This record gives sequence, structure tokens and C-alpha cells, in this order.
Amino acid sequence: MKNKKSKKTDTSGFTASISFDRRLAPYDIEGSIAHCKMLVKCKIISKSEGDKILKGLREIEEEISKEKFKFLPQDEDIHMAVERRLIEKTGESGGRLHTARSRNDQVSLDMRMYLRDEIKKISALIENLQDSIVKSSERNMEVIMPGFTHLQHAQPVLFSHHLMAYFFMLKRDRERFADCLKRVNVLPLDAGALAGTSSSIDREFVARQLGFSSISENSIDTVSDRDFVIEFLSVGAMLMMHFSRLAEELVIWSSPEFSFIEMDEDFCTGSSIMPQKKNPDVAELIRGKTGRIYGNLQSLLTVMKGLPLSYNRDMQEDKERLFDTVDTLKNVLTVLSPLISSLKLNSKRMLSLAKEGYANATDAADYLVKKGVPFRKAHRLIRDIVLYSMGRGKSLEELSVKELKVFSPLFSEDFFDVINIKRCVESRKSQGGTAPEKVKNQIKKSKVKEKQE
Amino acid sequence: MKNKKSKKTDTSGFTASISFDRRLAPYDIEGSIAHCKMLVKCKIISKSEGDKILKGLREIEEEISKEKFKFLPQDEDIHMAVERRLIEKTGESGGRLHTARSRNDQVSLDMRMYLRDEIKKISALIENLQDSIVKSSERNMEVIMPGFTHLQHAQPVLFSHHLMAYFFMLKRDRERFADCLKRVNVLPLDAGALAGTSSSIDREFVARQLGFSSISENSIDTVSDRDFVIEFLSVGAMLMMHFSRLAEELVIWSSPEFSFIEMDEDFCTGSSIMPQKKNPDVAELIRGKTGRIYGNLQSLLTVMKGLPLSYNRDMQEDKERLFDTVDTLKNVLTVLSPLISSLKLNSKRMLSLAKEGYANATDAADYLVKKGVPFRKAHRLIRDIVLYSMGRGKSLEELSVKELKVFSPLFSEDFFDVINIKRCVESRKSQGGTAPEKVKNQIKKSKVKEKQE
Amino acid sequence: MKNKKSKKTDTSGFTASISFDRRLAPYDIEGSIAHCKMLVKCKIISKSEGDKILKGLREIEEEISKEKFKFLPQDEDIHMAVERRLIEKTGESGGRLHTARSRNDQVSLDMRMYLRDEIKKISALIENLQDSIVKSSERNMEVIMPGFTHLQHAQPVLFSHHLMAYFFMLKRDRERFADCLKRVNVLPLDAGALAGTSSSIDREFVARQLGFSSISENSIDTVSDRDFVIEFLSVGAMLMMHFSRLAEELVIWSSPEFSFIEMDEDFCTGSSIMPQKKNPDVAELIRGKTGRIYGNLQSLLTVMKGLPLSYNRDMQEDKERLFDTVDTLKNVLTVLSPLISSLKLNSKRMLSLAKEGYANATDAADYLVKKGVPFRKAHRLIRDIVLYSMGRGKSLEELSVKELKVFSPLFSEDFFDVINIKRCVESRKSQGGTAPEKVKNQIKKSKVKEKQE
Amino acid sequence: MKNKKSKKTDTSGFTASISFDRRLAPYDIEGSIAHCKMLVKCKIISKSEGDKILKGLREIEEEISKEKFKFLPQDEDIHMAVERRLIEKTGESGGRLHTARSRNDQVSLDMRMYLRDEIKKISALIENLQDSIVKSSERNMEVIMPGFTHLQHAQPVLFSHHLMAYFFMLKRDRERFADCLKRVNVLPLDAGALAGTSSSIDREFVARQLGFSSISENSIDTVSDRDFVIEFLSVGAMLMMHFSRLAEELVIWSSPEFSFIEMDEDFCTGSSIMPQKKNPDVAELIRGKTGRIYGNLQSLLTVMKGLPLSYNRDMQEDKERLFDTVDTLKNVLTVLSPLISSLKLNSKRMLSLAKEGYANATDAADYLVKKGVPFRKAHRLIRDIVLYSMGRGKSLEELSVKELKVFSPLFSEDFFDVINIKRCVESRKSQGGTAPEKVKNQIKKSKVKEKQE
Repeated sequence: MKNKKSKKTDTSGFTASISFDRRLAPYDIEGSIAHCKMLVKCKIISKSEGDKILKGLREIEEEISKEKFKFLPQDEDIHMAVERRLIEKTGESGGRLHTARSRNDQVSLDMRMYLRDEIKKISALIENLQDSIVKSSERNMEVIMPGFTHLQHAQPVLFSHHLMAYFFMLKRDRERFADCLKRVNVLPLDAGALAGTSSSIDREFVARQLGFSSISENSIDTVSDRDFVIEFLSVGAMLMMHFSRLAEELVIWSSPEFSFIEMDEDFCTGSSIMPQKKNPDVAELIRGKTGRIYGNLQSLLTVMKGLPLSYNRDMQEDKERLFDTVDTLKNVLTVLSPLISSLKLNSKRMLSLAKEGYANATDAADYLVKKGVPFRKAHRLIRDIVLYSMGRGKSLEELSVKELKVFSPLFSEDFFDVINIKRCVESRKSQGGTAPEKVKNQIKKSKVKEKQE
Repeated sequence: MKNKKSKKTDTSGFTASISFDRRLAPYDIEGSIAHCKMLVKCKIISKSEGDKILKGLREIEEEISKEKFKFLPQDEDIHMAVERRLIEKTGESGGRLHTARSRNDQVSLDMRMYLRDEIKKISALIENLQDSIVKSSERNMEVIMPGFTHLQHAQPVLFSHHLMAYFFMLKRDRERFADCLKRVNVLPLDAGALAGTSSSIDREFVARQLGFSSISENSIDTVSDRDFVIEFLSVGAMLMMHFSRLAEELVIWSSPEFSFIEMDEDFCTGSSIMPQKKNPDVAELIRGKTGRIYGNLQSLLTVMKGLPLSYNRDMQEDKERLFDTVDTLKNVLTVLSPLISSLKLNSKRMLSLAKEGYANATDAADYLVKKGVPFRKAHRLIRDIVLYSMGRGKSLEELSVKELKVFSPLFSEDFFDVINIKRCVESRKSQGGTAPEKVKNQIKKSKVKEKQE
Repeated sequence: MKNKKSKKTDTSGFTASISFDRRLAPYDIEGSIAHCKMLVKCKIISKSEGDKILKGLREIEEEISKEKFKFLPQDEDIHMAVERRLIEKTGESGGRLHTARSRNDQVSLDMRMYLRDEIKKISALIENLQDSIVKSSERNMEVIMPGFTHLQHAQPVLFSHHLMAYFFMLKRDRERFADCLKRVNVLPLDAGALAGTSSSIDREFVARQLGFSSISENSIDTVSDRDFVIEFLSVGAMLMMHFSRLAEELVIWSSPEFSFIEMDEDFCTGSSIMPQKKNPDVAELIRGKTGRIYGNLQSLLTVMKGLPLSYNRDMQEDKERLFDTVDTLKNVLTVLSPLISSLKLNSKRMLSLAKEGYANATDAADYLVKKGVPFRKAHRLIRDIVLYSMGRGKSLEELSVKELKVFSPLFSEDFFDVINIKRCVESRKSQGGTAPEKVKNQIKKSKVKEKQE
Repeated sequence: MKNKKSKKTDTSGFTASISFDRRLAPYDIEGSIAHCKMLVKCKIISKSEGDKILKGLREIEEEISKEKFKFLPQDEDIHMAVERRLIEKTGESGGRLHTARSRNDQVSLDMRMYLRDEIKKISALIENLQDSIVKSSERNMEVIMPGFTHLQHAQPVLFSHHLMAYFFMLKRDRERFADCLKRVNVLPLDAGALAGTSSSIDREFVARQLGFSSISENSIDTVSDRDFVIEFLSVGAMLMMHFSRLAEELVIWSSPEFSFIEMDEDFCTGSSIMPQKKNPDVAELIRGKTGRIYGNLQSLLTVMKGLPLSYNRDMQEDKERLFDTVDTLKNVLTVLSPLISSLKLNSKRMLSLAKEGYANATDAADYLVKKGVPFRKAHRLIRDIVLYSMGRGKSLEELSVKELKVFSPLFSEDFFDVINIKRCVESRKSQGGTAPEKVKNQIKKSKVKEKQE
């Protein structure tokens, strides 16, 4: 057995988390306060020692919130920093606080309390954005645009209908965050290092103090578990995916070729070299930030892959990726809401484009179906008529009944009512359809539902 | 404008999905049956045409289930294959079936019906596995093993306690699948291509026929949405992460150095070259298959990133990755349950290892804490005693009271009761702790809860 | 120690790879032929036995290529299937073939030989695509389009210049595949299970037989290593990323709003419901398939994360993801080349759009710079002029010298020469710039370089 | 067209990159110095103005390196901060520096110069680690350990052989970094915004000044390209995967059950609650950090997926993920090298374990093969003998010749020489095998090669 040890290696910079976990400080202290009260209640420490500890913790809380707390080089993580300071303040009493708990359950507690708060904030920001969407939809009820599939004109739709599609995506996102919250809001504290504790403690009391709706049921699982972080990152990835789709549309719609919308200059920047540029930077950055959010999810899945139970130090890697996701989602939500509110629509252009490209061809086919032609046959007939029209540079509206009758005797003057773009929109009255009354219905129902939740 | 087109390029192989989407056939037909009944009910097609169509669809269903259905080269996807065959059978009537719907909503319907079924099957398989875990935990209540953190001995625990940790992970997995199912079980049909339909249809009727609990509320969102697939893949990735942790433990525990367990030979294979080998291949493959499940999630997130609304052909890529995830999860669940049931535990070895490595040091510290020493001070004292013992090659049990008193006068004979390994386990009676009564409690509660769900 | 084993569990379906690894058969046999020759050469088996084995292997090769080979249920993988058949044919002699090798090195051999071939095929297909790009660039040298940054008009460029950007991306891709090939083309055979072999073998001979340029240098590394697969998947992910960018442009350029190009109908499909639709499905699918390629990379990285040396069964998961990437890349390359060749450019529209949107503003600023105005000041001046022009609905060309002189006395008639769109393009003569002579230069140099490689 | 703009939204915090791109400052200034010299050389600006600019840039360089540079709120990015300060210092002259370039090529330049430096540093750190590996291999040449496949004992190997496997992984990593560097080390400057520039510039001169080995050939590709970042992240992911395997082994080998090694306490930490703990935190964190490195790769692949040419703001997201990968790789390399150097091997335990578990069974089979038994038959015979021995709790060495002859008359006394563990190791003399002379050969060759590189 030979080895060669030249000199001491300082790995504290490599292992310490204090540079990023200090944002957990308020939760760490709040958790310690509840833990301390429980230790007193269960007579594990005396009332007077408990009072000293509580006083010390509250002072530390204030020092941190006022940025007067001095972090020392040996403060490996926020838990140790707080405890070190507490012992400075209270001596031996502070040393009793860690009875019946461990950093393994403590860090889970801090993370859960932090995430619980952040989910609520994010949900509220989503609600704000939904509100901007609903208001913009209400303001622009008369705007008709080409509806797209495959980025080709498909059928004319209301702009409000299109925008409300994002409302419903966000509704699902909020549901997912709420479902996630159920699994975040579980008390891990006092699972100890992994096996529970031999002290006669009262976890129900701690849960009530800290507002947890339930208590973890297996101490080994409790300290091994980062599911709640990963679930949050998954839900966040979906939300960000929705933003990436919206951002893509904003970028495409802002191109000179589309010119559907104009984004307020607050959300655009110029060029260092091209004087005419007004670039949709905010939308591009939102789209680009999808990368980091997807990557953060993949990071944590990778960290946890194949980790034996229970706590392993690998799990410290959860924090930076979680914090980055929380910050990014909040930042994006904060800029998206005013961006949507300030969108200027070029409604004339949208309408005129909706009229091009035979977007009413489905309605033309439906016209024949209603006169008894099987759908498949009607579809083929109209395709032939579209090709005929294209060859002549005409729209369907510009054909004569005579020309139409060559394809089928069923055509008559009423055809032109059916294929009028506004009529096309108004006719789609199926539930969830683009007819104004149906879109208004979506807006109305969404408001009611929001209140009920 | 110049281009050079040498010859016709056949891209049907590139674009077709029929090679993999045929597993949706039963759902496609069931959906068409409900759609047809609705068209009759709403008088969009006649009763007699409806009957012809229904008869045709049922015949096709049988042809497919009996593998007598002939797929033709021009059958691009399962929807077109079924419609083509229906028109062969019923002529013009068949051509009426596609009224008021589109492939965009139809494929979403098929996927949702398929996934609804599969989530139920997977949940049942998870329940089976949980059952195997509970039964094994009950059978092995007396087995004590070293509890690990950082793959180092931490504190002794019951094997059943450790195994039950997986029960609770799986419990969360089932909850997540149930939450996901709520968002899968929404009727998309009759959203049309993207804008709804002008026919007077009855979506509530279709939803009832097909057992959907709600109806999609925005037709553009409906055909743009693959959230339900991605959410399933996220939930599946978490489940697979849990399996990877279990598989890692099975592999490590099977190593000659650990020898905690022996896996039944059904789950092991030999070597082409080394005659003595018994390799834990099944556990390794489970761990390895985590890669594909994570990759599948990343695939779909990538596909949907930055896609403008509404339907885009990119979305066809959802199927193979979803099917692969479903198949893999079911396969893994199917082998894991008997693997767990057939595990042989080397309980003597586990106990003797639990006694090594000072796994009772926390209890030793707790002994001092209960005699009034602050936790931090007790922790330091016991660390010194552990170092002292290591230097002498002794366990804590092998120290004399005299030796102990050098470190603190508080030690007396009762110390050895406290650090007895069995006592260490029994004493951890906090909720979720490893004391037998608490683990039995977990087992008992989990059974009750399962029934309630 | 208690366990409950109800009945035998058949895990062969779970562990077998024969359903997908049979595509390695030709390489497996070619490798075995070389191995057999070496065993004869080194006198480990006799000449006559060697001859029997070689004859048997060649017969099996023919059976497989003619699809007459019968795979049996017990054939776990392609290596075992071939050996089983060989022993059927040659009896004891066949049993000698596996001397001095193991499945661990054998599967690495097969994979490396397979991948070596596929990299060459993929490189040739990339070269074809580059050729299509160069030819289209040559054909369309006169087409001017708006150059984009942020999907906003930036400066006018040659379409050929834009298209040639993809040529250079592909050039880097081919370099990366060539670099990867160096690390693929290393003989792993006869590393044995992990430790080498005690037979006196000649690995140099085997390497020469099979065309490997070097020999693996550490047998443990050899059987632990899947770097070559992951490197290929990384290089493939980059290639696919490039395709996703091209596909995105093709989709956007095909939208009615852009109408820059028309894709041949071979690469488009219609709609089941909208008779007028011509959707860019091939381009969309290419973009969508990026998901699976990224996911495949992530899959293998996940599989290998934290695997102890040497061979672990997890590594069997490499095959399906590699095969899927190889097939997808080849399929995409096969359709992309004719797609590019058959693109129809709407050059009039592209030019007219290039003239809109003040794409010549940088040239206007450069005009002032050349007259001595510092760049930053010139930039600000022109921005003011652009805003002035926008307010009046004028292009820069439509301003009078008088109007211009209000902003700066340096303006005179020659300004209009400088901001003429064609002149703007022609003037950018820096290396790599969009001036026709510079783009021709790119085309010329790329041809030369291609030959040199 | 209606919109509602309540108040100005400040998005500068959302779009600015100055908080993280300031580490590019030295490269930004070095690039500007070369650009300025070129502008003078090409007579685009005067010598005296050039001198003013150069003086200003050097002062700024010093201000930044001495941390005296004041970043202002309006400094969006490092390029603008430097230019702003330059204009403060030099007035109009500073405004001339941006002639003939753009931020789009400038940021690519800075990134390439930064990455070029970092690749060299990382390569040097890898070389250090390789050196530690070689030295440890040389020091421990006599240590025999069980070689593993499937974490089961396979065949005995030299510890040095196992450790050298990592040397060869790292060798490939260095090759990949060198290949990547070729594509990083290409001058992008003076591609302008996207189309080149109309100034008569000299890119060869700039390339020489800045030590670039070639010049980008297509200006649109130049500003669209982040391949070099993604390639670096891919290569880094592979390196990190290797570290994760090594870290996993270190963790497993440190477990009490294995006890193969002891890590120096510099690389371990204790527990807040368990006094006896010595946890391999550094190795765990290395393994855990694999997550972020994989995630960073996925992030950038996602960002670039489907981005149309040329520059888009999404690309700003490249920086933080690149910087994080660079920092993490360097930090891991910095701790791994001393960790390896200070490893203590428990060589007695390793040897005794190597003797258990029939790790010499392959040699036993080879014994029969050398006596003429076909390998497959020998393999089966030895498997039977192993099972027979297991049943009697004997090792192969403990069987009598008489017992062996029951299985085959070919056995005689010389069998025990062959299956002696040391002999097993010494006999594997194939190239790359575990025989000491072959491992020494690896060490010797690797040293020579290192020098040649």
C-alpha cells in the first residue's frame, strides 16, 4: 500500500454550498424556531434554554435580512452558518438545537418551504399573465387572422381565439403546479439522518407550526427524496415550452413579411451596427431560455439516476438548478404580462391575409356536405376547384356560379354567403370553436373558473 | 428562378406513420363509432348510413384484431387505412364519416384513449409491485441491516424500513399518474382542423360515449397540445429514476463484497467466457433503461420547443417515444415484482455488518444528550471516543466503563444497553422511524390507504 | 432469510437483444473469420479445424443475407445465434472459435465495424447534400434576398450566400465525423472479458485483416468503453441541429406571408379536411426528428453515467439508440438533397422584400463613415433619418438630397448609388462577404477543398 | 387595433448580459486592439486616431484587471461597456473603432478567444491528472484486485491496469479537445452583422495578430454559428462521464463492505449528527456534477434547435452554460489529481477478495482448452466444477486432482499452477492485457506518446 501525499488539499471551495444556499436562510431559521418550540413542548430542552435559542434565532434572522450577518470561511452551508452564530450568541444552549434532527432532514425542510413559497408566487404570476391574455382577447374580439396549421393558412380564426389557446395551456400549468404543491407540502423534519430519532418528539406539532398539510411517512425515503424538486422542474419545463411557442409566434409575427403585430419598444432593442433595427430581443430571450430550463430538468434527473439510498452528497446539486429555474420562470412571467398587454395588432393586414390562400376551402366543402355530398367527395371536388382558381389567379369568391356548376350542379348563389370570411368564422359554433360567441364563452367561463379555484 | 428536378422523390416512407401508429387502431375505430353515432343523433347523416358505417367499422375492428387487415402502401397512417377500408366496404357512406372532424383532433383522440388505458395498466402494475414490497417487508421484519448515507454506514435500520422507502416513492408515482390522467382524460374530438366545425354537433354525447370526464375548451389549443404526452413522459422518468435507484442497490448488494442479497437465477445470466459468473443482468438493464426513458422525455420537449400553433407535422414524432416509454415501463414493472418477491436476504451478514463501523455512534451521542450534554458537545465527545476505539481496533461495545469515563464521567453501565444494535433500531420511534412498531405502522397504513384510493 | 418464489419468471424477452442486434450479423461473422484465421496462424487451433469453421461461417453469412437463417428462441444475441448455428454445422470445432475472446470484446468489435461503415455512408450522403447546395448556389447567383438577424431585415444578401452558410456547417460536420472515425477505428478484439487472454495471440494480424488502423491499449478500458458511440451521437446531434435550422427556414419561407420558396409537391402533403392545403411535411418532420436525435444522445450519456468498470449489461442499451440515430440521419440526408435541388425560388418577391425595411441603412451609415464621420455618430444620424422616413412612409431611396442635408451637409447625389440594393450586396467584398465575387470564391474554394480531402 | 400600455416596462435586467459576460473583457479588448491596428494599417482610420484608441483600450484593460472599472446601469454587455468607456476617454475617435465590425462577430471573437485559452488550461489539467494516474500505477504495480464485470468478480487484475484504463479514457478526451480546438481557433471578426463589410479590410492581418490559424469563410455562417460551444460542451460531457465512473468506483471502494481504498480526509467530510462518519463527499459531488454538465449540453442544443439564420438573441444563452461547464471541469480536475495521488490502497484485502469467488475459473477453462478441449465444452465443464465446489464451500485451489479427474481425465497437478491468482494475472500477456509486463508497457508507451504530442 503506497500513496503519495504531497500537501494538504483545500476542498472546502469545492464542497461548500454557502455561496448559493444562503437564500434558504429565512426558511432555515423559521424551521429551527418551530423545531425549538417542539423540543421545549416535548421537554427535551428546558423552557429557558428554548427562549434563549428563540431569541438568538430571531436576532440572526434580523442580521441576515439586514445583510449584517457575517459569513465566515468555515461556514460550509447555511445550516452550519446559522448554528455557528447561534452558539456564538447562546453558548451551550445553541448546541442543543440540533437534537433530534440532522442536516439531511433540515435541508429538505428548507427546500420544501422555499419551493412552497415560490410555487405560490409563480402561480400568482401565471394568473396575472392569464389576466393579460383575457383582457387582450376581450379588447380584440373583432380581429380576424389566418389560422395556421403547418405554418400554412388553414381556416380563418379570431385572434382572441388563438390567444386564448395560451390561456388554456397556462390553466393546465397552474393545475400541475397545484398538484406538485401537494407533494412539496409534506413535513420532512425530524426524520433525522435517515432512521428517525429516539427522542420523544411531536412531528404533528412541527407540521402545524410550519403550515405543512402532512408528514413524511418513511424516514429513509424522506432524506433520499428529491422528487419534489424534479416534479417542479418538469412542470416548469412544460410552462417554458408554452412560452417558447408564444415567443416563436411573436418573433414570426413581428417579421416584416408577417407584420401581424408590433411589439412595444420596451421589449425590443436596436443594433450596434444597423441603424434601422428593432429586434424582438425579449421574445427571443424567452425562447432561448427554454434551453436552460430543459437542461436544469435533465441535470437533476441525471444526478438522481442510480443513486443508492439514502442521502448522498450528489443531491447538493439540486439547489443551483432549482434556483435558476425559479428565477427564470419568474423573470419571464414578469416581462411577458406587460408584453402581451402592450401588443399592437395590425388587424387590417391580418384580415386581408385571412382572405388570401383559400382559407375558406373547408367551408366550401362543408357547403357541399350540407347539400348531401359525402365529405370525402366534397373534399376532392373543392380541391379541384381550388386548383382551377389558382391557375386563374382567382379567389373562390371571384368564381362565377357558372364556373362552379361545371364542377357540381349543387352550387348556387348562397355559396358566396358561406365562404365569406366573417361568416366562416361565425359559423364554427361547435364547443371550443372560433365563432365569436364561443370565444366569448371561453372568456366568460375562464373567469368563473378562476374565481372558483 | 431556377431549380433542377431530376426525378420524382418518394418521401412516403419518410412521412408515413403507419408502421408504428397501427397500435392505435382499436382506439381509432372506437372513436369513429362514437363519432358516427353522434352524426346520426345530430341528423348530420342518416340512420341507415350510420348503420352501414358502424357495421363496416366493426368488421374492420375484427379484421385488425384477427390480423387479417391488409395494410396497403398508400395507407399513410392508421386513420387513412381505416377510412380507406371503410370506403371499400360501404362506398359513399364511408366518405361521410369524416364530416365535422379532422385528423388533427382524431389523432389526439386516439392518443388520449390509448394513454388513458396504459396509465391504468401501469398504475395496476405499480400496485402489484407495491404489494410485493409490502409482502417482502412483512416477511423480513426481523432483518437488521446497516443504514447508509454516502454509501457509508450511518445507523442500523430494518431492511423492511429500507424497502418500504420504495413503497412511498411508488405511492407518489401513482399519485402523479392519477394527476396526469385528469389531463389526459379530456375529449379533443370535433375540434376540427383547428377552428371548430360549422356542423351542429354534440360533443357532450361523444364524451359520454367514450368515457371522457371533460371536453377541451379551445379548439386551437386542442390540436396544438401534446402536454398530456410530455406530462406522462415526465412522470414516467421519475418512476424510472426510482427504479434506477433500486436497481443500483440490487447490483451493489449482490456484489461479493456486500453479499446482502441473492437474486433468483431467473434474473441473472452467465458469461460466454467466465464459467463462474452469475450476473445481475435484469437489474443492470433496468438501470440502463433509465437512459431511454430520460431521452424520450427530452425528445418530446425538444420537438415542442418553439413550435408555433396549431398542428405541425413535427408532432407525429410523439408516438414512437411514447410507445417506447409505455412498453419499457410495463416490461420493467413486470420483471421487478417477481424479482423483489424472490430476493433471498443474507440476514446474518447484514446484521454482522450493521454491528461494524460504529453505526451506533449517534445513539452513543444521544445517550449523553439525554444526560444533559448539549448535542454539539456530545457529538464531539463521541467522535473522540470513536477515534480512540478505531485506534485500538475495538467497537464501542468493547470499551470498558473505565475507558469511557476518561471522556466523560456521565458514562455508566446502562450505556451498553443503549448502543446495542437491536436497541438502536427499536429506540427510533419517531413517526416514520425505523423502530419495528413504526415500520409495521407504515405497512398497516399503506394497506388502508391503498384501499381507500 | 425468507423469500417467496411463486413460479419461474421468464426474463429472456427482457434481456435478449437479438430482435435488434441482428443487423450486426455481417460484422460479427467477418470478425469471427478474422479471429479464426488468427487462431490458425498462431497455432491455437489446427488448420483443418480452422477451415471447417471458416466454411461454416461463410455458409451462415449466406443464410443470413438470404434471410434463410432461423433464429431460435434461445438465441439471446447475434453472437450466440451465430455460434449456435456454427456448432450445429461443425460440431466441436465450432466450440473452439470462442477461444481467446469474449462477448465483451466481440460486441465492441461488431459495433465499431458497423459504425465505421455507417460513418462513411453518412459522410458520403453529406457530401451529396453539399453538392446539391453548391449547385443550387451556382444556379441562383443573381437572387438577392433580405438577410435576417432576429428574423428582422438586416442587410441584403445573395440567396447563394445564405445557402452556402449551410455548406460550411456541413463541412464542419464532416470534419467531426472524420475525427470521430479515428476513435472508432480501433481494434477491440481479443481484449477478452476484461483482462486480456493467456493465449499467444496476434492482435496486429486481426487488425490488418479487418482494416483497423490501431489496437486498443488497455483491455479493461476496451470492454468498458462506449465513448465512440456517444461521440457519434454528439456529432449526429450537431448535424441534426443544422438540419433543424434549415428545416425551420424552409417552413417559414414557404408560409404565404414569406412566399420566398415553393417546395416540390414530392415534399409536401395535403390535409384530410382542408382541400387547399399544401403542407411542408418533410421539412417539419426533419425539424421534429431533432428531438429523437437529441434524446438518443442524452440516453447514452445517462446510461454511462456512474457506471463502474468494466462491462455492465446497461451498455446493451447503446444499440437501439445508435441504430435509430444512424437510420434517421441517413433518411433525412436522403430526402434533403433532392428537396434542395428542387426548390423553386420566388426571386422577384425576395428582391422586392430586400428593398423594403431599410435593409440598406448600414450602407447609408458606411457612406457617412467614409466621409469621415465616426461610426457611432453616423449610426445615430442614420437612425434618425430612418425614423424620419418611416414617419413619412418613404424608403431611403425616396428621400431628396435636400431632406438629407438637413441631417448632415455631407450628403450628396452619390448617396443613392451607395444605397442601391444591388450595390449594397456588391460592395461587401470582405472575405466571406456577400459580394457575388466573394460568394463565387466560396463556391470555388469549397470545390477544391472537397477534392483535396 | 387596440392595446393597453399602462406604464414603461424596464426589461434591461432581462436582456442584459453584463453580469456574466464581463469575464470576456480581456478578450474583448485584445480583439479591439487588433481590429484597431488593422483599421490603421488599411487606412480606414488615421495613425493618430488609432494611437488614441489603443492607449484608451490599454487603460481600460488595466482598469478592469485592477477592478477599478465602473460598470454603469446602461452597460448592456461587455462590448458596450468597453466602447462607452473608450468614448469617454477618446471622444469621437472611440466612435470610429466599431467601423467594419458588429457585435455579432465581436461576441463570437471573444467567445472563441476565451474558449481557446480554457481548452488549453483544461488539457493541461487533464495531463496533470494523467500524470497522477501513471505515478499511482507505477507505485502500486504489485497490487492485485478482483477485476469486475457486472460488479461481480470476473478475473483478477492489477490495480494499475484498472487505473490505467482511466488514463486511456482521458487520452481520448484530450484528443477530442484538440480536435475541437481546431474548430474554435477560426477568426470570426469582421464578418460584420452578417453580410461582410464594404470597407477594405485585412482579415489575415487580424488573424495573425490574434493567433488564429484560419479565417471563417462565410459571414452568415460566422454569426449564426455556436457549433464550437456545443462541441466543447459535448467533449466536456464525455470527460465528465468518465469522472462519474471513477467517482462511482471511489465511492463503492470506500464503502465498509469493499474497503479497497481509503481516501485522504481532505476529500471527506463528517456528519452533523453521526460522530463516526467519514463521507466521500468530494467523489460524490464529482459524480453529482455530471448532471449539470449534461444539462448544459442539452441546454445549448435546445437553444439552437430550429433557429433560423443568422444571429438571434437566443444565442446569448450560450455564455452562462459554457462558463459553468468550464469552471466545473477545472474545479473537478483540480481536486481529482491530488485525490488520486493520496489514495491509500488496502492491498491485502484486495488480494484476498481476488482469491474468492472463482475469479480463476476462466484460467481453469483455458487449462482444458490448451489440452485440446473445445472452448465451449471446457467452459461447461468448469461451470460444473464451480458448482460442485460451491456446494462444498471450497475454492478451486482446494479441490484434489482426484475430484477433478471425475470431471475430466485431463486434469493433473500442473492445474494448480495455472489457477494460482498471481499466475492468472501474469499469464494474460496479450496486448493490453493485465500481465505486469503488459501494464508496464502501457505506462511506458503512454509516457513516450505524451512527449510526442
